[in-house]
Amino acid sequence: MKPKIIIVGGGFGGLAAASELASVDAEVVVIDKQNHHLFQPLLYQVATAGLSPADIAWPIRRILRRQKNARVVMAKVTGVDTAKKRVLMGDEFEDYNFLIIATGASHAYFGHDDWAPYAPGLKNINDATDVRRSVLMAFERAEIEDDSQERARLLTFVVVGGGPTGVEMAGAISEVARKALSKDFRCIDPRTARVLLIEAGPTLLSSFTPTMSRYAQKALEQLGVEIRLGDAVTHCSADGVRVRDGSIPAATIIWAAGVAASPAAEWLQASKDRNNRVIVDRKLQVEGLPQIFVIGDTATFIGKDGDPLPGVATVAKQQGKFVGSVIAARLHGKPEPAEFRYRDVGQLATIGRRKAVVDLGRVRFKGWLAWWFWGIVHIYFLVNNRSRFTVAIQWLWSYLTFDRGARLIVLDD
Amino acid sequence: MKPKIIIVGGGFGGLAAASELASVDAEVVVIDKQNHHLFQPLLYQVATAGLSPADIAWPIRRILRRQKNARVVMAKVTGVDTAKKRVLMGDEFEDYNFLIIATGASHAYFGHDDWAPYAPGLKNINDATDVRRSVLMAFERAEIEDDSQERARLLTFVVVGGGPTGVEMAGAISEVARKALSKDFRCIDPRTARVLLIEAGPTLLSSFTPTMSRYAQKALEQLGVEIRLGDAVTHCSADGVRVRDGSIPAATIIWAAGVAASPAAEWLQASKDRNNRVIVDRKLQVEGLPQIFVIGDTATFIGKDGDPLPGVATVAKQQGKFVGSVIAARLHGKPEPAEFRYRDVGQLATIGRRKAVVDLGRVRFKGWLAWWFWGIVHIYFLVNNRSRFTVAIQWLWSYLTFDRGARLIVLDD
Repeated sequence: MKPKIIIVGGGFGGLAAASELASVDAEVVVIDKQNHHLFQPLLYQVATAGLSPADIAWPIRRILRRQKNARVVMAKVTGVDTAKKRVLMGDEFEDYNFLIIATGASHAYFGHDDWAPYAPGLKNINDATDVRRSVLMAFERAEIEDDSQERARLLTFVVVGGGPTGVEMAGAISEVARKALSKDFRCIDPRTARVLLIEAGPTLLSSFTPTMSRYAQKALEQLGVEIRLGDAVTHCSADGVRVRDGSIPAATIIWAAGVAASPAAEWLQASKDRNNRVIVDRKLQVEGLPQIFVIGDTATFIGKDGDPLPGVATVAKQQGKFVGSVIAARLHGKPEPAEFRYRDVGQLATIGRRKAVVDLGRVRFKGWLAWWFWGIVHIYFLVNNRSRFTVAIQWLWSYLTFDRGARLIVLDD
Repeated sequence: MKPKIIIVGGGFGGLAAASELASVDAEVVVIDKQNHHLFQPLLYQVATAGLSPADIAWPIRRILRRQKNARVVMAKVTGVDTAKKRVLMGDEFEDYNFLIIATGASHAYFGHDDWAPYAPGLKNINDATDVRRSVLMAFERAEIEDDSQERARLLTFVVVGGGPTGVEMAGAISEVARKALSKDFRCIDPRTARVLLIEAGPTLLSSFTPTMSRYAQKALEQLGVEIRLGDAVTHCSADGVRVRDGSIPAATIIWAAGVAASPAAEWLQASKDRNNRVIVDRKLQVEGLPQIFVIGDTATFIGKDGDPLPGVATVAKQQGKFVGSVIAARLHGKPEPAEFRYRDVGQLATIGRRKAVVDLGRVRFKGWLAWWFWGIVHIYFLVNNRSRFTVAIQWLWSYLTFDRGARLIVLDD
């Protein structure tokens, strides 16, 4: 029997690990509860009607088609039996010799899980189409609403959290209202929509430099977004949000404030940080379980500046590649790398049409050049040429017409 | 007050009527329960993972953006008060001077509505994504199934009905299994999937000439589809279908056999045929209600050959244009056209890669030329250039790679 390496999760980390293990004489099994790998950095565009789900998601087994030692299983993992070395999927299980857990994270409501139905986050395709439906439905409902107070509530959109996702969502919703929808209604003027971005900290995009943060804030304000810094959402309901100095009636709330890792720590009975992330050693292994690696958003790993590495695609990819090479070295009896080192390639965030910020460490720029750079980088990282073509064309279309191509509300009959 | 014309339904018929009324000095209100117009002829491609919903659906209010006398209301019509001349939408209503009902049709199970959960039809976006999910999930389940009998059941796909939709679905599923998926699984060979097409009548595509029907049958058989003519499905369940001489275990059943008009006849207390279609006069008016017109799949209208006109887009479009012109003439006090005359522009059906049939009345052809013709005609009739570009690129991609771009299974967590 060949050794068996199980990878749970077909995100950036899991796929990087699988790819690194392509030439190893072992069975590589990728298990995911969905059939697709998702390009999360563009998920907000699905939520704001710019792209279709299939533009940014591809079947995992299609991606791994040519990797002969890889097998893909679509199933929901329910636990890990570390004694018997088994991954449990309900009544079924798969034995492993090595296990890589790359299950990502979902939204966290700081102990207020009851807010979830009113303030959806943005982690998977369902989240994105749900948000798209509520944003577009708010305008539809406002169009047939006679009561002016209720109409104002319907046309108020609150985004909670001023990180990249919150900034991108707020900018995109404001552009949808002010450009894409502006001429389509007869009873309301979508340009009167109020988009609020609420951030508890003192700046937007706190991981960028202060100049960049200030630029992002100004650019968003030019797009018509109201920004509240240093304010905290203390309650979410169907009526709206409560903030420090009162209530904001709003029909649509989008949660971009906190994430919590998937339940991997519980599966492994491992130590975790307050965001549920598994504490791993310098090789991304779990203490006492040297065959188990945890990577990406599911793990917490202290970088060289003393802070945990951020939950971004590049960290997950590099960690996946690293643990793949560690396992390959062990299987081949070769010396393995001593510890994971994160190579910071920089960060980008887009705000709106021709407005973005780019921080590559040595080089920093903002404005239209950063926006084009952002677009080209994102198209480059899409999985295949079909997606590159279709995304490029939809963006070109939106750029030229201010239109949004995926303004679909799909309701049950 | 300007006169008010209400159009219920934003399909081919409703939009043609609205467009014909663009220069009339009246208020035109289009009411639809969905926010989008759907290009139904390509719906089977969404169901078979070739296209995304947004490629073939566009917001109705976007389409009517420039028509200043038109207003779009997204709401579900629940009835018509013909005495008070009101369209009812739950507790709300809209008054009309003229009413055009263009609400289309949905599937009919010949009195066996309990089959619906097991044998979904194909009328709206939800239907298409549901069918896509079940087709793709059948392969995923088969891949992890140990029992060979159950695996065979999972890999059996039954299409009921040998009209254009049934032929297109059967051909497309067979191509997905034999081409797009063929190399992606490790435990099953998708090429062993069984696709059955069951038709109660003596031929496929019975509205085409016998030569065309025979060609379609041969072409489908070459694609690996098993065809059963003159056989009837007598029962559908989660296990499969029952036919005249036994049972066929199948996990996926697709209903392309019968349609029934929407409940317009009940709303109007009007006479109807056995498919629930409203019986209309030579001007598409309802007897005793001269302000109400019923068009498209919702109406039955006897053509010059003595048969009811088929439920196709061209009939709906021409009828929409006709009733628009009748209403315009009445409002302007001009002579109105005497009766609706259908101009038959022919029919097309595609079977699979480089295989289609085209019947334009005077000209008939089949094979690769017909297939290219089919593709160009369908791209031409898409609503805007964005869709033309993206559909053309996805088709080109599929043509060159045998791949399908929208192989998404989206499950709730």
